[in-house]
Amino acid sequence: MTIKEKAAAMKLDSTQMASKSAKIRNLALSAIITALQQNQNDIFQANEQDLAEAAENHIPEAVVKRLKFTPQKLSDVVNGIESLIAMPDKVYETQLVRELDEGLVLIRESCPIGVIGVIFEARPDALVQIASLCIKSGNCAILKGGSETKNTNKILFSLIWHAAIESGLPENCLFQAEQRDEISELLSCHESVDLLIPRGSNAFVQYIMNHTKIPVMGHADGICHIYVDESFDIDKAIPVIVDAKTQYTAACNAVETLLVHKDAVSILMPRLNKVFQEHHIELRATADIVKQYGSIEATDEDFRTEYLDLILSAKTVENIDEAIVHINKYGSHHTDCIITENQEAAEYFMRMVDSAGVYQNCSTRFADGFRYGFGAEVGISTGKIHARGPVGIEGLLTYKYKLYGNGQIVADYASGKKEFHFKDCKK
Amino acid sequence: MTIKEKAAAMKLDSTQMASKSAKIRNLALSAIITALQQNQNDIFQANEQDLAEAAENHIPEAVVKRLKFTPQKLSDVVNGIESLIAMPDKVYETQLVRELDEGLVLIRESCPIGVIGVIFEARPDALVQIASLCIKSGNCAILKGGSETKNTNKILFSLIWHAAIESGLPENCLFQAEQRDEISELLSCHESVDLLIPRGSNAFVQYIMNHTKIPVMGHADGICHIYVDESFDIDKAIPVIVDAKTQYTAACNAVETLLVHKDAVSILMPRLNKVFQEHHIELRATADIVKQYGSIEATDEDFRTEYLDLILSAKTVENIDEAIVHINKYGSHHTDCIITENQEAAEYFMRMVDSAGVYQNCSTRFADGFRYGFGAEVGISTGKIHARGPVGIEGLLTYKYKLYGNGQIVADYASGKKEFHFKDCKK
Repeated sequence: MTIKEKAAAMKLDSTQMASKSAKIRNLALSAIITALQQNQNDIFQANEQDLAEAAENHIPEAVVKRLKFTPQKLSDVVNGIESLIAMPDKVYETQLVRELDEGLVLIRESCPIGVIGVIFEARPDALVQIASLCIKSGNCAILKGGSETKNTNKILFSLIWHAAIESGLPENCLFQAEQRDEISELLSCHESVDLLIPRGSNAFVQYIMNHTKIPVMGHADGICHIYVDESFDIDKAIPVIVDAKTQYTAACNAVETLLVHKDAVSILMPRLNKVFQEHHIELRATADIVKQYGSIEATDEDFRTEYLDLILSAKTVENIDEAIVHINKYGSHHTDCIITENQEAAEYFMRMVDSAGVYQNCSTRFADGFRYGFGAEVGISTGKIHARGPVGIEGLLTYKYKLYGNGQIVADYASGKKEFHFKDCKK
Repeated sequence: MTIKEKAAAMKLDSTQMASKSAKIRNLALSAIITALQQNQNDIFQANEQDLAEAAENHIPEAVVKRLKFTPQKLSDVVNGIESLIAMPDKVYETQLVRELDEGLVLIRESCPIGVIGVIFEARPDALVQIASLCIKSGNCAILKGGSETKNTNKILFSLIWHAAIESGLPENCLFQAEQRDEISELLSCHESVDLLIPRGSNAFVQYIMNHTKIPVMGHADGICHIYVDESFDIDKAIPVIVDAKTQYTAACNAVETLLVHKDAVSILMPRLNKVFQEHHIELRATADIVKQYGSIEATDEDFRTEYLDLILSAKTVENIDEAIVHINKYGSHHTDCIITENQEAAEYFMRMVDSAGVYQNCSTRFADGFRYGFGAEVGISTGKIHARGPVGIEGLLTYKYKLYGNGQIVADYASGKKEFHFKDCKK
């Protein structure tokens, strides 16, 4: 079966999948936990094989770290699935009840999107999280993981799929694409696939967006900023900046640019500079900072760069407005933070910065589905259409309008014989 | 100024526009009403000029009907703006308040999308409605109307823009593109324009989707179905079918295909056939109906056709499941209706049919922003991402996550030193 044929079959099964009760969907999630736990030795063995192949192929250390599936990671994904099971069901939630006229009632109700295609990096825990989120939200999913974890993915997918089917979900609820060339086939399935979620490098996400008619949800760059305002607490600023830069440099929510109010520079920079040296953080700054604190001078290109490394660009700004304009121009609308004790400045910054996440006095690294209490995430969206920020269950749902009548026709309202009265009722 | 430069200026002004209070946005809408009423003679005069040019250019009657701006249409758009003013403000509505941990509070708040480009047909009332909806929702808008109404659009836009600016909205809140070649320039503005809403023919909308990187919201075809179930009330079925087909044949929510349960055919068809003859409706049906009632035989292509004319395709189905499969396969996921007295059948149909609108016992022509009580609509979406169905204010909003902290860092949670407690609070 080609991906196209498979996707068409999934599309047909997607209404069956959508109509399954929360009870069955939760049962499937419980069965997945059991299957993962009972077969953990086989999973770890498959993972050893991936690690051996990675060593042979000289895969970089950072990638190897991600593809390693440890008992700790198994326990984390199991906790994630448990929290998904515990979450209230969001499918078929009534969002609006409006009587348009006597006996003509409009109801807006949430429902699954349908068939979702997710292309993700070589991380076994991602496969489990994405499959679980799609099941909880009543969607069918085509999963394509990074090839470096093919052995681990194969057994994980097989366990998850069998557990799902045996719990009563339709046969085509989940499908794993295993070949790299299947990605381009997937991109052409706009008649069957409702949404694509690519995760990976900016170049990869751009490539996907440019080669498909399917709506794409995802984030391109993650150029996050921290702006240190004039009235700031240095004891909050320094740990927050260091955490945002160093806690996981390869993450999209790591900070890449520091903006400093001109009156804050002389207080912040001496202490920050010292801490940066301890953490081996390279600073690329505007001339005034370089002159005083001897870092490398930043180019315009630096402010457009997602380093994903122990490098930070820094710029002195005249005032909060210059910071906002810089962020809206150079940023990627992901997550941006203000360090300030002035609540009015915080509110102004948070309203005017056009990003999915706008923070006060905390690390940009909090931008994450688990940390937002969504249980898991399928990705982080920097788009403004549909879901924005970390995408959990709600981002995998759409809605439909149901209209109940008893023979009403539009001609009666167009002629003035009848009139709408629009009464909103309790949901 | 090119469209690209203008769009970039609007993007910069869009945060200003988004930060205007509901009071200012409503004041602008009131000022627009006054300007339209005080200058109605000039508007009607400009419209006369468009009508004269249309006559010279032998523009089809259906188009002329749409471009004519009458005192009745002025009164309708004024009523529409008044109902928008009366509506509660949806911008900066709190959607979620969650304490992630002591002193770390996550708030999800709605906000405008930013810069919206709307390309619409030659209908002066559409220009007023779209501009009003964008103002109410705090968005900047680039408007490109059909060239057949250029004189009317010019004066309407000028009145609206001046009223908006004088009420305190930013200079770049609205812009009118007047040349046809400006459309292709608009399509390349993906760095400044957040969303495109094209209205018009299927071919036109497809063209837009294939030629831009900007997210597009809209509907392609409107192939709507009515399914007459076995237990149906003929006194509801006949007026609903006739209304859905004839009340406005050129509309996307007009019915194009009738599906009839095999046990309903002999009751429905004789009376329906007679009514169809009175209304000059051409029936293209499956062989069994043709044999009994002498209509034209339908081809597979008929079931994929949006006639926008007094033609209806009809098919006998074995059961409700065949109807659902047909609709999900041949339909355009716009609006589909079941005629039944069996509530269980209605609920099943409404859950399994994958369309923006699923109706029981009423005309598909109700699928409309005004009839849903949204005041107006920018269009109807058959996409499942972001807004679905008629799109009013809510479809022009997105949200952002605000996170308030006092120095929290992720390292403390990653190391287990601190733990999230996720407490949802009252909004």
